[in-house]
Formats: sequence, C-alpha cells, structure tokens
Amino acid sequence: MKALVLEKAGKISIQNKAFDETLGETDVQVKIHSVGICGSDIHYYQHGRIGPFVVQAPMVLGHEASGTVLAVGKKVTHIKVGDRVCMEPGIPDMQSPQSRAGIYNLDPAVRFWATPPIDGSLRETLIHPAAFTFPLPDNVSFAEGAMVEPLAIGMHAATKAGIKPGDIALVIGAGTIGVVTALAALAGGCAEVIICDVFDEKLAIAANYQGLHAVNIKSGQLAQKVSELTSGNGVDIVFECSGSKAAIATVSEHIAPGGTAVLIGMPIDAAPLDIVAAQAKEVTFKTIFRYANMYPRTLRLLSSGKLNVKPLISATYKFAEGIEAFERAAAGNPTDIKIMLEME
Amino acid sequence: MKALVLEKAGKISIQNKAFDETLGETDVQVKIHSVGICGSDIHYYQHGRIGPFVVQAPMVLGHEASGTVLAVGKKVTHIKVGDRVCMEPGIPDMQSPQSRAGIYNLDPAVRFWATPPIDGSLRETLIHPAAFTFPLPDNVSFAEGAMVEPLAIGMHAATKAGIKPGDIALVIGAGTIGVVTALAALAGGCAEVIICDVFDEKLAIAANYQGLHAVNIKSGQLAQKVSELTSGNGVDIVFECSGSKAAIATVSEHIAPGGTAVLIGMPIDAAPLDIVAAQAKEVTFKTIFRYANMYPRTLRLLSSGKLNVKPLISATYKFAEGIEAFERAAAGNPTDIKIMLEME
Amino acid sequence: MKALVLEKAGKISIQNKAFDETLGETDVQVKIHSVGICGSDIHYYQHGRIGPFVVQAPMVLGHEASGTVLAVGKKVTHIKVGDRVCMEPGIPDMQSPQSRAGIYNLDPAVRFWATPPIDGSLRETLIHPAAFTFPLPDNVSFAEGAMVEPLAIGMHAATKAGIKPGDIALVIGAGTIGVVTALAALAGGCAEVIICDVFDEKLAIAANYQGLHAVNIKSGQLAQKVSELTSGNGVDIVFECSGSKAAIATVSEHIAPGGTAVLIGMPIDAAPLDIVAAQAKEVTFKTIFRYANMYPRTLRLLSSGKLNVKPLISATYKFAEGIEAFERAAAGNPTDIKIMLEME
Amino acid sequence: MKALVLEKAGKISIQNKAFDETLGETDVQVKIHSVGICGSDIHYYQHGRIGPFVVQAPMVLGHEASGTVLAVGKKVTHIKVGDRVCMEPGIPDMQSPQSRAGIYNLDPAVRFWATPPIDGSLRETLIHPAAFTFPLPDNVSFAEGAMVEPLAIGMHAATKAGIKPGDIALVIGAGTIGVVTALAALAGGCAEVIICDVFDEKLAIAANYQGLHAVNIKSGQLAQKVSELTSGNGVDIVFECSGSKAAIATVSEHIAPGGTAVLIGMPIDAAPLDIVAAQAKEVTFKTIFRYANMYPRTLRLLSSGKLNVKPLISATYKFAEGIEAFERAAAGNPTDIKIMLEME
Repeated sequence: MKALVLEKAGKISIQNKAFDETLGETDVQVKIHSVGICGSDIHYYQHGRIGPFVVQAPMVLGHEASGTVLAVGKKVTHIKVGDRVCMEPGIPDMQSPQSRAGIYNLDPAVRFWATPPIDGSLRETLIHPAAFTFPLPDNVSFAEGAMVEPLAIGMHAATKAGIKPGDIALVIGAGTIGVVTALAALAGGCAEVIICDVFDEKLAIAANYQGLHAVNIKSGQLAQKVSELTSGNGVDIVFECSGSKAAIATVSEHIAPGGTAVLIGMPIDAAPLDIVAAQAKEVTFKTIFRYANMYPRTLRLLSSGKLNVKPLISATYKFAEGIEAFERAAAGNPTDIKIMLEME
Repeated sequence: MKALVLEKAGKISIQNKAFDETLGETDVQVKIHSVGICGSDIHYYQHGRIGPFVVQAPMVLGHEASGTVLAVGKKVTHIKVGDRVCMEPGIPDMQSPQSRAGIYNLDPAVRFWATPPIDGSLRETLIHPAAFTFPLPDNVSFAEGAMVEPLAIGMHAATKAGIKPGDIALVIGAGTIGVVTALAALAGGCAEVIICDVFDEKLAIAANYQGLHAVNIKSGQLAQKVSELTSGNGVDIVFECSGSKAAIATVSEHIAPGGTAVLIGMPIDAAPLDIVAAQAKEVTFKTIFRYANMYPRTLRLLSSGKLNVKPLISATYKFAEGIEAFERAAAGNPTDIKIMLEME
Repeated sequence: MKALVLEKAGKISIQNKAFDETLGETDVQVKIHSVGICGSDIHYYQHGRIGPFVVQAPMVLGHEASGTVLAVGKKVTHIKVGDRVCMEPGIPDMQSPQSRAGIYNLDPAVRFWATPPIDGSLRETLIHPAAFTFPLPDNVSFAEGAMVEPLAIGMHAATKAGIKPGDIALVIGAGTIGVVTALAALAGGCAEVIICDVFDEKLAIAANYQGLHAVNIKSGQLAQKVSELTSGNGVDIVFECSGSKAAIATVSEHIAPGGTAVLIGMPIDAAPLDIVAAQAKEVTFKTIFRYANMYPRTLRLLSSGKLNVKPLISATYKFAEGIEAFERAAAGNPTDIKIMLEME
Repeated sequence: MKALVLEKAGKISIQNKAFDETLGETDVQVKIHSVGICGSDIHYYQHGRIGPFVVQAPMVLGHEASGTVLAVGKKVTHIKVGDRVCMEPGIPDMQSPQSRAGIYNLDPAVRFWATPPIDGSLRETLIHPAAFTFPLPDNVSFAEGAMVEPLAIGMHAATKAGIKPGDIALVIGAGTIGVVTALAALAGGCAEVIICDVFDEKLAIAANYQGLHAVNIKSGQLAQKVSELTSGNGVDIVFECSGSKAAIATVSEHIAPGGTAVLIGMPIDAAPLDIVAAQAKEVTFKTIFRYANMYPRTLRLLSSGKLNVKPLISATYKFAEGIEAFERAAAGNPTDIKIMLEME
C-alpha cells in the first residue's frame, strides 16, 4: 500500500510499502481517512531524532488518525465493520505494572506510532487493538477525529490539573498544544482562561474563542490581566505549554496560594525553578506524558459542542500532496495551527 | 426598620423591628436589595420547624440576599462603601477545628440566617462579616447576586463530585436545587447532563438549556437515555436532589463502575440503600451540607456567562408585596423555580 | 491431579481431576503450597451459591494461595522457575475500559477462582498469568503468602479510605476481614484503631495487637471510647466490616465532620441509611469490591514487619485432611480466624 | 519577665523585657516550660535575616514551645488552667481567603513567632490564641511537646505526599527535618524509608530506627538500595530535605512512574530541574510551607508510640545557660539533632 515514509533526516517520500501484520482476535483493521501533521512528525523530518529516539530505518510518519473499520477480530464486540473511528497511537503492554495501575501511558514498553522504530499512520490501512479504537459520534467529522490526539494531551493536562468549577487558568504558549489545552480547561470547568504568547498571529486565533483572554507577553500586561480576573489572588492553575525556561522560572508568580502548575512544554535541558517562591505558595507541579483514558471523554466534549476545534484546522491536503503539506507545516507559519492530510 | 417576620407557623407579617447590632471592625453594613425565597423559608412558614430547628420566637426570614454596602469596619480592605455585594448567610466560628480545616460549613456553632433563632435578611439593612461578603461583578445583577446562595449548593455538589472534563452526569429531581446543580455540573466540566423528574413542567424549564437532557421518569426512558449517552457504561456521577427514597434505593443502577453519587436531597427518614449493588461498582457516595468557599467561583461563572440563572427567576415582587410573594411560593407551582423580592 | 471439589451444596471431596490448561507465553505454572479457607468457600459449601453466583457443576474451591513456580512462559521476565509466589485470584480482561482505567477489579468479565464456574486453587498445580503472580520476600512464609488475599481486601479498604498520618479509625466487626482491615489501617498511618464486635472471643485476638482497642458493643462503652481517643470529635474513618444493618444505620454517629465510612461488609438486602445525619457531617461513603494493585504493597508491609498475620492463622491442616479442615471452618468457632491447608 | 533576645546579628542576651499583651476572650496565657532551638533561630542569630525577613529591632527568639496554662479567656472551652500544652507558633488571620479555605499557613498576614518583627517564645510566659494551643496527652513530655513544631513539618510533608499503605519513600538529607520527615513517613504508612546524606554521623542516628535504611550518598549505593527495596521500579515518594541543587536536579531518577516528590529543603537560589525526565514518569512535585492542622494528629502519633522523638533530643540546657545552648547549636555538630531549653 501507499505510505508517507521518512527515509532519513530531511527526506520524506510517498512510496509503496508492505506491512507484516495480521488481524488478531482483539484487533480491528482501519482504512485511514484523515491524519494531522504533528510537531513531532516535523521534528523527525528535520532532525531524524527526538532526544533518545533516533530514526535508524525508514519509518512511516503520522499518529493523529481517523478512518473507517474494514475488519474486526472475532472477539471484538464494541466496534463493527463500517464504523467511523479514531485511534490512540500508543499500544501499551496491558500486563505491565503501570498498565495495571491505570497509567498505561507510562508503560516503558509502549509502542507508539511514528516513534522509532514503530511505523505511523500515514498509510492506506492499518491494524490496531480494538481497545484503543473509538467510534466517532455522528456529528464528529474525520478531521475532528484526527484532532482528538492533540486534544487528548490538553484534556489529560486539564484532567490532571484537578480543575474546580469556576477556576481561572493561565496558559503559557499559544501553539497547537497551548490552544487545545486552553479549550480543554474551559470545557473542563474554568470560568476564564488567559493565554499568552509572543506572537500576535497565534494569539489572534485563540482570541476568537469566548472565554479565552489573549495577552502578548511583550505588552507587559500579563500580571495586570491575571490580577484583574482573580481579584489579585493569582490564577488557580498555570498550564506551561511553551517549554521556555524563562517562563518556567517565573511560573509561581502568577499562581494563587495553593495553586497548581501543569508542565507540558518540554525545555531542551534542565530549567531553573524558584523553589522557595513555589514553597511560599505551596504550588504543586504536575507533569504529563501523552495521556491515558482521554479519547472517550474528548469525543463526548466534541460531540456536545463544548469543544470546537474546527477553527484550528488551517489547511487540508490530499495524500498525494503530502510532501507539500509537510513542507508547509515545516515552515512554521504562526497562523498554521494544524495541517490535515486526507488519505481518500 | 421594616422586616418580614415569621411570628409562628402559618403567620408572617411585614413589621417594624429593631436589631441590636453594631458594626465591628471586620464587618460591613449592607442595604439589602434582592432576596430570593427558599424552600426552607416556606417550610418554616408552613410548619414552624425543620427537624430539630424550631421557631420559638418571631424570626426574620430570608437568606438569599444581595445589596449595597453602606458602611465598612476599620479593618475592612477588600470592600468599600457603595459596592454591590452578595453575602454568605452562614457565619461560622473561624476558630473552630472545622473552620481551621477549611470545612467551616460543618462548624457546629455556625450561625445561619433564618435558621432559628438567627434572624434572616428580609429587612432593610444588616451587618455582616466582610469575610463572607462578596462584590458583584458589574455584569451580575442584584437578582443574580441573590441567586448565588442556591447556586452555591449546586456548585458545592459539583465541586465535591470531582468532575473530570467530559464526564456525563445524571441529576435526579428538577426543582431549584436540581436545576442549579445540573447547571453547575455543565459549567464545571460535564459534557452532557441528564435531568429527570416526574413533572413535565419542571423539566420543560431545564430542557431549554443547551446540554441538559430532560427525561420524565414516568416515561420509562431514563435507562435508555443513560445508556445512549454513555455507550452503555452508566453515568460518571449521579446528583440525587429529590430526597426520594425510591430514587436513592436504585441510585447505583445508573452509575458506571468507579462512579460517584452525591446525595443532596434530604429524605425525611432513613433511606434503604442497596450496598451490595454499590460495592459491585465501588460507588462512592458523597454527602453535602450547604457549602464552603463557593461564592467567588460562582460569581466568576455567572460573570463569564457559563452559568445563566436568569431563566430561573420566575417572578419578582416588591417588598411591600412580600406576603403575596410567600403565598405564591408556598403554592408550589411546578413552573415557579425562584420567586424574588426587591427591598427597594 | 488431586483437587478439593465442591460437588454440590453440602458435598465436598478430594478427587482426581484433569484440567484443560496450557502454559501461555505470559503465564506461569505454580505448584500450590498453602491455601487459606475463606468464608466464601464455606458459604458455597453450605449453600451452593452466593447471590447470583450458583454452583451448577463440580468446582474446585479455594482462592487464597501460594506456591512455587514450576514453569514460566517465554515472555515472562520478572518471575523464574523456583520462585516462591502468591497469586491474585482474579483474572481480568486487561483490554476492558475498567482495566484500562486501573480498576480491573470492576471489569465485568473478570474470572475469579472458586466463583462459579471458575475452578479454584485447592489443587496440586495451576497455570496463572505472570502479571498476577508475585514473588514472596524471603522472610514471608507460604502461609503468610496465602494470607495476602484476605489482607488485600483490608489494604484496599485502607487505601481507598485515604488515611492521613495520625487518623483515628473505628472498625466494626472483628472477623477475619475486620481484623485484617484494622491491621492495614494501623500499618497505613492510623495512630490508633478501635475495633468492636459482639463476641469477646474475637475481640480477644484483636486486643493482642499494639494500637488496637477492642470494645464489645454490648458493653455500651463504644461511644465513650470514641470520644476519649478523639477529643470528642469522632473518628476520621469507620470501616464497616460487619454487614449488620443495625451498624450501618448508625455509622455516621461515630464519625467526625468531614470523615469517611468504608462499607466492606455485605448486608443481605438494602440497608437503611440516615442520609440527613450523614449530610450534617458531610460523611463520604466508599464501597469496595475485592481489590486492585494491592499485592506488592501488602507483601512489602509483611516483609517490613509492619503487618503481622501470624497470630491470625488458627490451625493448619494437611491437604489429605481437607474435609476435616472445611468442617472445622464451617463450625464457625469465633476464635478461628483463618484455617490454612498445606498441599505438600 | 526574662527573655532570650536577639539584639542584632551575632548578639543574643537574656534580659528582662516587658510585653504589651492582654488576655483576649479566646486566648490563653502559658507559662513556658521547654523550647527547642531551630535552625532558623540560629540563622537569625548568625545573619540577622532570612531572605526578606530582617531583624531590625531586638526580637525574642524561639518558636518550638510547650508549657502550662496559667489563665484562659472567658470563651475558651477546650483548655483549662493547669493543662500541659504546646502551641502552633503561627497566628493567621482566620478571616483571610486562605484561612477560609483551610490553608491558613499560606495567609500572607500570618504572624509567626521569632520571624521579625514578631517576638518568639523564649520567655517566661506568653499569651496565645486557644485555637492554636493543644493539650499534651499524659504520656507526652514537655520536651516532646516542643518537638511537635519541627515534627509538624515532617507530618505536613507526609500528609501532602498522599502516602498509600505500603509505599516506599526516599528522604534526601538527614538533618532534623529529614529525620522527622522520615519518621512521619513511616508512621504515616510507608513500609520502608531510605534516608541518605553525606554525613555518617547524622545517618547513624537515623539508622537506629526500625524501618529506616540509612545510605551515605558518597558510597554510590543509593541507586542499588532503591532498586532492591522497590523491585527496580523506583520509590513512590521522594522527600527532598537537603535543599541541595545537585539533589534536586536528579530527583526524578529515583522515583517510580506516577510517583511524587515533596520539596521541603530551601535552595538559596533557583534550582535546575530536569523537566523532561520528570514528564517521562509524570512525577508530581509538591512544595510545602510550614504546616496547617498538623498538631492534633502529631500528638496522637506521639502518644500512641508510633512516633518516637526522644532519641532526637541531643542535649537539654537550663534557660540560664541559654547563650551556651545557642553557641552549641550554632556549632552545627552533625550528631546534634535538637538542643532543648528548659525555662523552669
């Protein structure tokens, strides 16, 4: 079948590729419809590696995917042929201690699409465990289904934050993850969310959402906006999505006593943290790694209309134009939130 | 000053009454603007008691109140004369073990408006601790400010439920508390909320809200609706607001494994609970008593537009028509969610 | 191989029995050493059923087991031949929504030893998933290893209770589960634990433990003991292990405001609960069903000496005397906490 | 009355000093018996400041205190003249938003003994709010009562850690706070606690406790000890008590996936944290500031015998020898855990 393959750093191609896979009794086979291009796809494309994960052999890219079920294993009961579905891209060993404890995302043996050496989803069909395949509600499109993957990160952050109804949050960074985290925080119970960045173009997209307050950090207005929305107490939750060491260094400044910071952005090396300032407010720092058990609840919020990701799909390309789509995504235009590929 | 006084069961009057109160250094004096009539006001009016609380001397009614600050004590810093405010009606001893632990609503010595022998807020002015007085945002009306009190019960229930983003909830009972709890659950992160009752008139009001699914229990459609919205798993949370023993007896039926029931309704005597059925799903039952620390977050959700209580104010009477307002509230018309009195 | 088989209500025998089982690649084969007799084994023996679970064909009894590994599947890495081990008796479908969420004990498809129609562990050898097989520390005996199963229930209750260091707990019921729950609560952070029952013989065994305060309910001294140990505030946690409706009806009486009751005992039908009394203290009720993820932490506490179950093993029989052991257990002598069978 | 006064950095004296204080109706007057010397007392003595807190006028030192009640205000009910008591040294404004939420330790207006400009407890008598004064159980000595203050820090850390029964913890740093935190973790439910430091003398004291495993970091054996006690998974909780930036930089290394680090030590400036390493395990970082609501539960554990601080009292001086006691404490002998002063 046709697949979009990263041959080595800087070289991708659409090629015919055979996959050695058989439908197990708890698996499904899916004809892929839509695949979003993620920053990690671009990073592998440009650098051939992310930290310890090195591309040493040609690998299919893509891990944000939706499609239609072609076949189901004989023990599969909750999915049937013809169902429109989206898939969690990580396949954990469900016998591991972490999986038994409900944190299967932390299973050291997890196999994750388009993380070397595991092939991704930019191909015509694939076989996947039914347990990590989720039917799309009728009013959720394939493109929205593919968006569940990045949304799940924001949802996991919002869930781990332990939002209480009416909390005020601050999201640092207005890239894809920043925006979807802000939307998840709003849908998840925050009364208002401030989102900040240094790019006005990114903030303009966020500012279109009811309940999101966009602030350019360069304006020097962030502290004032926090004070205004929180009666001077500070926000209940900071979602740090920038990975900027400068942002991390001062994260406690904006937080109310007893508040929480969720660290989502990944700084490239150790980030200085003012621990004494954090202690004075007993700030709790939570860190997240991908997500677990987030797909069903994300689909429910998309279906209910409380999450709306349509404005985040900046452009849609046919699979045949996949190289062009990757070049555009690699260009890093700040108004491009998500580039989507359609396989059919 | 003028006050609406319950003299004894069945007899209320508007009369001149003097109050022996002085402005302490951490107090404020408030000119009352709006007061909602609560079911407990009606119950005291009709029966002269609620359980162990017996009206033994004339008592001013009303505890859902908003107004304008007339004077502030010399140590008060966050409120100034002229501020529009609403007030928590319970005044705890902040030195008690419960208050020190943040559960001041459970302080046994709490003094609560219009719970005998403490006078309520249906009077021209009153003196109150500044710590339990909260400025209204500019876009929150006095009537909405008075509604914060019943809303705070729903908010407390929603907060204690530990809603995760995208949960599905079921609210049993579509009276005032049922509806405000359903709204708090939606604002607090639920994707969808089913609300059920036996009165179509009550359900019609709830059904107007986006995200609320109204089901008449008599229709026999509740189980099907739960199954449809939860892929057959059951709801994550049940908010029991009816106090009906029949409802309590079967509460676990509708809940997903690992789910939570919040018991808000107050059955008049011991209610049979199927503990083995609850155990099979490890259901957690939480119970609530009024609320603590809910006013600021409720005001933030009202101000943001995520909570909208305007459709719940069924009628507004002038204070001079207060007896008439009480008679109407006492009639128990199922389409009357909240009757409001305006003092000015 | 030889096995102890329940043929029908009232009839057990030791007989030769063949098992149709093969060693899967993630399984281990275990030579059974010790098996404790549980109340449920006795109940099936006497009545042929427990609620909806009916013995319709001969079934091997026993689910509290330890032994030595005879063989391991080719993917098993954490266990090797010759290891001394104990086993969780429930085998969930790890692909189910509940298992993915870490509550695999609530998987509706769980297969549990000696719950019809699943054969139990009173046989010479068996095959079991390695993921639910746990090596015994050198200083933990086979008999203690078999005791991990009932201990895991107490540990699960203590874990779900959310004990804070220095809490005071009350355990209602001093049978096997009551005593192991009390021990888990002490090891898990309680400063002192009151345990009550109506049988002095049971209480005498509990009273031997440092930190356990045994009170016969008939003495009328329970309320006084609670008051004395809690400065009149009530206990932080009640563990209800009796299943007595009278005990459940009054459980809130002994609890401090904001406290928790864990319902472990299983009353045979719906139990009246005073909800209004619970609400006045915002009591949280947790219910439990078996356990999940408790074996490793239970073994650590046994190995450290913080849990000591040796005094609870009332008698040990050889497998050949298994019928006699069951008769003794069925007699229900209040001083018999646990009867143990040795297969070798 | 006589008091031990810090006049300026490097100069302390015992002198007569008058205090302008009157017994309020919710206060008690206490004759001081025992006062422990804290590292902060020594720091003020040596440097005249701790961060932003500068000694600008003579100030009485000491905040770890116990004594006997001389008089009680007219509204005090739970304490009577003659009671042996210990006192929380921080007096919050109980009307603040933080106090209302149960985190009164984070009230910005808290007045804390021996934090400038508030006088401490090294004097003959003092007046204190009854709400922050706690009767000593009969079997708890005055010296142990004074030790409740540092113990409360360890207890607060252990409580915020959310220990589950049978967890394994690592404590970094074996000074006073490290040791009391390790003891609180053991009493609070840990099966075993590893404690590490670079000083063998400190570790020798810790090693005397059952359940504490002392490891000198210089030995290079820490990773192995962690692996051995946790089957290679890492510890559930790290309590960082050293304030060492090197220790903080690598804290995630020792933690199991999903584990928690409690940051107690106060590094003098921003500490580099490897956030990506933390994210890979979803480590949660909690920070603490003093404590709230810890005195009663600490006293219960002392009384029950589960906490034993007697071996930590290295020397006891009479008040008249107070200067000498401070000089010894200032010398920083690694075998001196706590120097105690007796006023009587």
